[in-house]
Amino acid sequence: MKILVLNCGSSSAKYMVYDWDAKNIMCKGIVERVTIGGSFCEHEATGRDKVKIERECPTHREAVELILELLVNPEHGVLKDVKEIDAVGHRVVHGGERFAKSVIIDDEVIKAFKEIQDLAPLHNPANILGIEAAVGILPDVPHMAVMDTAWHQTMKPPQFIYALPYDWYEKNKVRRYGFHGTSLLYVAKRAAVLLGKDPFDINLILLHVGNGVSANAVKKGISYDTSMGFTPQEGLVMGTRAGDFDAAVGFYMMQKLNLSPKDMETIINKKSGLLGITGKFTDRRDVLEAMADGDKRAELAFELECYRLKKYIGAYAAALGGVDAVVWTAGVGEMAPDIRARSMDGLDFMGIKIDPEKNKVAMTRNSESDISAADSKVKVFVIPTDEELVFVEDVVALLENRYDEHTNFKYSFQDPGYQNAMRDEEFAKELEKKPEKAKAAAKIPG
Amino acid sequence: MKILVLNCGSSSAKYMVYDWDAKNIMCKGIVERVTIGGSFCEHEATGRDKVKIERECPTHREAVELILELLVNPEHGVLKDVKEIDAVGHRVVHGGERFAKSVIIDDEVIKAFKEIQDLAPLHNPANILGIEAAVGILPDVPHMAVMDTAWHQTMKPPQFIYALPYDWYEKNKVRRYGFHGTSLLYVAKRAAVLLGKDPFDINLILLHVGNGVSANAVKKGISYDTSMGFTPQEGLVMGTRAGDFDAAVGFYMMQKLNLSPKDMETIINKKSGLLGITGKFTDRRDVLEAMADGDKRAELAFELECYRLKKYIGAYAAALGGVDAVVWTAGVGEMAPDIRARSMDGLDFMGIKIDPEKNKVAMTRNSESDISAADSKVKVFVIPTDEELVFVEDVVALLENRYDEHTNFKYSFQDPGYQNAMRDEEFAKELEKKPEKAKAAAKIPG
Repeated sequence: MKILVLNCGSSSAKYMVYDWDAKNIMCKGIVERVTIGGSFCEHEATGRDKVKIERECPTHREAVELILELLVNPEHGVLKDVKEIDAVGHRVVHGGERFAKSVIIDDEVIKAFKEIQDLAPLHNPANILGIEAAVGILPDVPHMAVMDTAWHQTMKPPQFIYALPYDWYEKNKVRRYGFHGTSLLYVAKRAAVLLGKDPFDINLILLHVGNGVSANAVKKGISYDTSMGFTPQEGLVMGTRAGDFDAAVGFYMMQKLNLSPKDMETIINKKSGLLGITGKFTDRRDVLEAMADGDKRAELAFELECYRLKKYIGAYAAALGGVDAVVWTAGVGEMAPDIRARSMDGLDFMGIKIDPEKNKVAMTRNSESDISAADSKVKVFVIPTDEELVFVEDVVALLENRYDEHTNFKYSFQDPGYQNAMRDEEFAKELEKKPEKAKAAAKIPG
Repeated sequence: MKILVLNCGSSSAKYMVYDWDAKNIMCKGIVERVTIGGSFCEHEATGRDKVKIERECPTHREAVELILELLVNPEHGVLKDVKEIDAVGHRVVHGGERFAKSVIIDDEVIKAFKEIQDLAPLHNPANILGIEAAVGILPDVPHMAVMDTAWHQTMKPPQFIYALPYDWYEKNKVRRYGFHGTSLLYVAKRAAVLLGKDPFDINLILLHVGNGVSANAVKKGISYDTSMGFTPQEGLVMGTRAGDFDAAVGFYMMQKLNLSPKDMETIINKKSGLLGITGKFTDRRDVLEAMADGDKRAELAFELECYRLKKYIGAYAAALGGVDAVVWTAGVGEMAPDIRARSMDGLDFMGIKIDPEKNKVAMTRNSESDISAADSKVKVFVIPTDEELVFVEDVVALLENRYDEHTNFKYSFQDPGYQNAMRDEEFAKELEKKPEKAKAAAKIPG
């Protein structure tokens, strides 16, 4: 079974073809500068060199057409015919309150997405354009939507309501939604396997730390609270997003600098976070390197990021009344032992204690690690995430009519014997191809 | 020694005369509707009936004149001559980064307040007007400023910097300041006495829960982090202030409803919090009563307030690496056992456990209570606050030239033999005068 995965942004279209039977990625790529002129596609079939194809894509339709052409291209393609595609999975950032799981797309679903599209104005309108283009070109294939918000729909009002005028919730859908759902679902289920426990019998704190950062309190296996809120800017310090701050600052600075709401959205999403503090870095490797060289602002950025992570760990431990495991995932969570160590420093009193040596060597996206100290009451895991697998498995299960919400569905990666072979192979390849990147990662001071 | 305390708001002037030798309040009152027409003063000399005097006060100068007149009024006054006033203490909400302790006011200090007055536009300009009026009328008496922010000036950058563009801090003074300093100082010092420990050898979580709400992490006796930030709106759920929420909500709603930054300031400060959620209540007694009657929105408000308190307790416990005591203070903190119980529910795993019976009976502003369970590692105290005492003692010590930052100064109430006789007497009187209020408090379900 072959699944095409599409993720359309405002001026881009990412894609991947996944062979479900072989459990591997056949090809992946991205069309960039869609709608804005000078568009091109970077396409990579697994095991072959990456190629760059220039072609104007005035709308997302041309981008999807280009992708389908490349999939069957005699030189670069991986399929003989687009008819080999069994289903198309579309990433939709925001599912609002309507969708607690992935769905088969029909007119009703598209209508629902349109109703909430201004909740995620940077993402959802493009996601919808991508869906409409792909449905137009491949009308006979089932299309499915997988949403970043679905995992969090188990949250209850005391966790998702803001203490703002209540009619902003009723009339304007203002509430905490949470994001990063596919990644969080994956590591939550894997943590249960590592703990050897029923996934619905454990409390977890999940820390997805990449360029975007989410903390997630998981109570009895379901999402209970999360740090990203109405938008993905709330919560922890991120590459370019501010996370938590006194909202009154925004209204103050708007008046001081004569800024519009849109200006402010840009500043808090694109010019804040680590970039805002350091003035130049978003990549934690750069921050750590500069800090080692004595850069005080880089040190502040590091301390601030870790301090806020620590506060969320404490807050969610209290919210859950104790936890079975803390899980680190995503690029930084998997690869930055310094950030993990600093963030969990001094938490022995609540049963969280890492083994410094185990933490130091857990610096690969290639294996799952238990970095807890032998006498730690709470397990601390580093689990490389695999959003693609969740994505594709949702699509396949929908296609096979055996899908349901994660509370009633068992994923392949919940099998105790499961090994993420695809990831292992891909990672080995990356290491071979980009030794300097691996080296840079290894340079993060232990 | 007699101290006049002045607290000028934009259209009000609160005052109190305190007899330092007798340790009691001689009189107190408030001039309302200053500058806006129809002004009047409600004046109450201790032990006598409250009186209302109507007199136009076009500026704060007339209000201060009226106050001084009343102090020596043959019928309502408490002094023979204003010359009996040894010093005037002015409450100044925002001391910026300049003031880490109370100060004697001179031209330099007034200039410094003017430089930062737009950081607290609702408070500081009026505070300055009050100072200038009082200095003009009583030029020969020393005037002192006591600031809500001074206590928090021990915070370090990882705790007070936001992950926003760094030049907003450098050029616009955008950072976390924290408020409620005099109250927090008082209960921190009292907690040390109750613990029988050196105040600089303990970690505390202080919860000042009144109409405004602050959480304060105290590390080795000094303020380490606090929930109120650039303004007093950040942090916990309050009577009418929103506390923490995704700042992006603000910019979204501005565009949706065509609101200005000033409109948003009003909404998040005056129409949010418990009022925003319930649509009608700010007083916790009303919230609890409505909840008992089955009001779902009141229940949500209660759950939301307690949940956020719990998250701050957890966050600060983690930030401090463990705590010696959690302290509840201010109107709600002292009088609402339900809110305390719900907020600390399930925290045994981090050593925090209350005795439900002790918690239930700790419902008076009249005594300090240890409500911890016998096997609780962390002590939980209810300590009625006394901001006035800190305020007056700062002024007296400044006057006697023996004052310093709290890290180098010992307050009278740090004496193990100290008893807040003034408060006891006042409270007894209030109970006698307003039995229905005491009854309402007692109705809070246990």
